[in-house]
Amino acid sequence: MQPFRYHVFVCDQQKPEGVPCCSARGSREVVDALRREAAARGLSAQVQITPCGSLGLCERGPNMVVYPDGIWYSGVTAKDVPEIVRGHFEKGQPVERLINRDEQAVRTEISSRPES
Amino acid sequence: MQPFRYHVFVCDQQKPEGVPCCSARGSREVVDALRREAAARGLSAQVQITPCGSLGLCERGPNMVVYPDGIWYSGVTAKDVPEIVRGHFEKGQPVERLINRDEQAVRTEISSRPES
Repeated sequence: MQPFRYHVFVCDQQKPEGVPCCSARGSREVVDALRREAAARGLSAQVQITPCGSLGLCERGPNMVVYPDGIWYSGVTAKDVPEIVRGHFEKGQPVERLINRDEQAVRTEISSRPES
Repeated sequence: MQPFRYHVFVCDQQKPEGVPCCSARGSREVVDALRREAAARGLSAQVQITPCGSLGLCERGPNMVVYPDGIWYSGVTAKDVPEIVRGHFEKGQPVERLINRDEQAVRTEISSRPES
């Protein structure tokens, strides 16, 4: 089923102090900004934002993945959020400059973090 | 991109004691069983298991959603996991008896939990 048009998972994994992770790199601000901007654009019912465990690529975070599209974004900041919401979620045009297409890196890194 | 064939998100949201939630209903055991069974079937590289925040429907949990398919399962237990891994992830045949098709319930419930 598809209760929403986009289901967005944002890594908010917390790691010990000093270890790179999306949480330490501002993922909570990204989650809050996504929800705020989606609401402001009248998209709350169509765009579901769900925090999640590690997506790998911790040192490139905050990372997020948008389904069912399968678009991965890395290095997202709260400042990027309006562009993502208006471009991708409102107009269906993913934000090219933030897309991560490094499939091999995701496969390699995430498989080494079975605990996440 | 599609670094894995299936990306499985399992709610492991924790709520105050006594409040129904996937965590209290055994979601951690489901996550562990999914990883164990996927590994045993040689599917670890094709099936990524990621714990996540609330998917709504807390009193029907543990809940999980499989992308890019968009198949939602509710009331999953560790005992159901071999059937899901072998049926759905190995043969591409979702486990009908566990599928949740109640789109309206997901929309209604999840939208009332913006904090999750």
